[in-house]
Amino acid sequence: MDELHHTCQWGTGKPWGVAATETGMSRLALSDADKQARDWFVETTQSLGCSVQVDAMGNIFAIRPGREDGPPTCAGSHLDTQPSGGRYDGILGILAGVEMLKVLKDHNVQTAYPVGVVNWTNEEGARFPISMVSSGVWAGEIPLDRAHNLQEVGGGTATMKSELERIGFLGSLPASYKAMPLAAHFELHIEQGPILEAEKQKIGVVKGVQAYRWYTVEVTGREAHTGTTPFSSRGDAMLAAARMIALSHDSARKHSALASTGILTLTPGSVNTIPGAVRFSLDVRAPLDSTVEALEKEFKEQFAKIVSKESTGGLAVEVNWQTDSVSPAIHFHEDCITAVREAAVSVTGKEALVRDMVSGAGHDSVYASRHCPTSMIFVPSRNGISHNPEEYTNPEDCAIGAEVLLQSVLRYDRQ
Amino acid sequence: MDELHHTCQWGTGKPWGVAATETGMSRLALSDADKQARDWFVETTQSLGCSVQVDAMGNIFAIRPGREDGPPTCAGSHLDTQPSGGRYDGILGILAGVEMLKVLKDHNVQTAYPVGVVNWTNEEGARFPISMVSSGVWAGEIPLDRAHNLQEVGGGTATMKSELERIGFLGSLPASYKAMPLAAHFELHIEQGPILEAEKQKIGVVKGVQAYRWYTVEVTGREAHTGTTPFSSRGDAMLAAARMIALSHDSARKHSALASTGILTLTPGSVNTIPGAVRFSLDVRAPLDSTVEALEKEFKEQFAKIVSKESTGGLAVEVNWQTDSVSPAIHFHEDCITAVREAAVSVTGKEALVRDMVSGAGHDSVYASRHCPTSMIFVPSRNGISHNPEEYTNPEDCAIGAEVLLQSVLRYDRQ
Ligand SMILES: NC(=O)NCCC(=O)O
Ligand SMILES: NC(=O)NCCC(=O)O
Repeated sequence: MDELHHTCQWGTGKPWGVAATETGMSRLALSDADKQARDWFVETTQSLGCSVQVDAMGNIFAIRPGREDGPPTCAGSHLDTQPSGGRYDGILGILAGVEMLKVLKDHNVQTAYPVGVVNWTNEEGARFPISMVSSGVWAGEIPLDRAHNLQEVGGGTATMKSELERIGFLGSLPASYKAMPLAAHFELHIEQGPILEAEKQKIGVVKGVQAYRWYTVEVTGREAHTGTTPFSSRGDAMLAAARMIALSHDSARKHSALASTGILTLTPGSVNTIPGAVRFSLDVRAPLDSTVEALEKEFKEQFAKIVSKESTGGLAVEVNWQTDSVSPAIHFHEDCITAVREAAVSVTGKEALVRDMVSGAGHDSVYASRHCPTSMIFVPSRNGISHNPEEYTNPEDCAIGAEVLLQSVLRYDRQ
Repeated sequence: MDELHHTCQWGTGKPWGVAATETGMSRLALSDADKQARDWFVETTQSLGCSVQVDAMGNIFAIRPGREDGPPTCAGSHLDTQPSGGRYDGILGILAGVEMLKVLKDHNVQTAYPVGVVNWTNEEGARFPISMVSSGVWAGEIPLDRAHNLQEVGGGTATMKSELERIGFLGSLPASYKAMPLAAHFELHIEQGPILEAEKQKIGVVKGVQAYRWYTVEVTGREAHTGTTPFSSRGDAMLAAARMIALSHDSARKHSALASTGILTLTPGSVNTIPGAVRFSLDVRAPLDSTVEALEKEFKEQFAKIVSKESTGGLAVEVNWQTDSVSPAIHFHEDCITAVREAAVSVTGKEALVRDMVSGAGHDSVYASRHCPTSMIFVPSRNGISHNPEEYTNPEDCAIGAEVLLQSVLRYDRQ
């Protein structure tokens, strides 16, 4: 925990309490703060006996040799955060991985094969708006070019490639499971939801991840004067967008799915000009791919109605869709699930403290699982809150999670 | 028209056609482009025999002496534009005023009392979000301090005072009708609406202006993860704001009023974080003050329902209102209305080409009318479009409007 808080000096965010460690984090991917955290990661893992390689997406692989050569069994997660995120999302997984390396060194443990820790780039998708984009490139699911050319949100001109170059993390290793095969991928992560806390359980054995898709919706109307333009002559892009956002929520609720809008920009942005254009993000999630697909279809139909003349009561408005990313529902590998479950029961000492779960959030383990056996370990989140400075997991739960991670990796290595 | 297009070199905006003059304007108040237009205005009116005074709000009064001393009868309007506005809104009124000064000089006309042209600062309220703020200070309706401290929209730190100082237009004359009394105020303006064009008429005699109020609505929810936070645990500020915007439109429609949202910002602005805070502008208009007041009351009640737990189906959200400006319904002075009507009939030669109107937009004439007889002259707007680069009034109609302005001022001066 000391080391975790130590690394939170890079990108310290909003305070939520009085203690020095009671702040959130604001460490956007490939920012100066991210570079500092990465430099720390490289130095620390090297000093713990790892060889470090950086690939073309800035993914960092720190690998500790085993008795025999072969692909490493890795603990992986991410050091980047949301613009106003917390100290645990991603960070806990990396720090627990580093702790594992320390324990192995302190106890002179020799594993059968190499083991390691991976820091994946821009997992959050907060600065460059595709989540898990760099594990996605590694998995061959997202083209390198598309990822390199991804522009930062908020109108800046930086791309992933330009920022990788700027901070010195555009590595020479190809970003691919072919150049850097993994034996297995285990990820310790905070739950980011309310279940473990509510059920007074300690460890979630993550069997899979729900499906989600991200879209950018562009609404184009006509700029006009707010005081002189009757409703019958308006093409109000903001009104249409507002109706779409409300509708997406109502429809998702009916399907027991989720829909959320986290980004919205409009032009020209003047109190007395009706916006001519609005762009907003739409994040749609459900346990089944088919539900997400059905919702996409329904939204497209309903949004087309919202922009029609009949519905606006004025001019027709245009709507355009762009699919930014597709993350299908994933089921993790039984061997890894079993390793985590056995480790969890052995560490907590009680089956009742351990439960199977499906993750609501995406994780790099989604893409890792395409090319190696994978599973995840969840620990409780206070009030189920994440992507918020107040995100918190108590030190005891962090320690239990780290112990389960270590044991899962060792069990798998032995196997 | 040549001079009008000449001045549009300062702040040229988006093209909508092929000709050099077929572009909109982007000349935000107190920008560098506005300074250039102001410098032109000062030099030109001085060369036409005017003495020029600048007040503490940067309002510029160009006054041509008459046979006798006394308060001037003025043509007034504004040189600032929307971020993506047109070449006529405000600009036409000032250029027609300058044309009036030329005609008087060319024909050696001596008026009974002084006449002049006023350029009012930040009429649009687009950069500093109170419309007609500087005529409002002149009228004693808006405190000088409040206006000076007004911050630009979009998160910049510039205030009206800092920008007035920067461009050299913070004048020493007090911004007050007491220091600069006017005998009368006439304003030529484009209609910005569809009526004159639809009715094939040439001049609108503006008898008054409808009521309007501007509000900033702040919605505060809780930042949380879009993938792991069930609807039942959400405080989604964007969803609540979307419902408010849709509702304000629907209610305004029922009251034959107008409601519009031209600015919306949210934080933190990440695809997978539910926005914790949203701020949006709300512009509400109706012919009667009582309708605007009734709508304000209704919105406050309805918005309070939208943010309640029952309605969000999750956490309660907070809503806060701020009233940014109040512009009550105005009836102009009969003497000025009569002067405009008689001038219009004499210029067009046909009563059928002239009609009485009420303005949907606010104008500096609203505040001028508090302290001197006032009226306005409208000319047709193509397709009723304004606050849009495509705003257009043909040269013949501009000329008719300028002629009516000149004659209205001379009629009133003689009277
Ligand atoms: N764990 C996490 O916050 N991942 C970000 C990707 C997502 O939006 O689910
Ligand atoms: N005429 C004009 O566009 N005035 C701006 C103030 C308003 O919003 O009505």
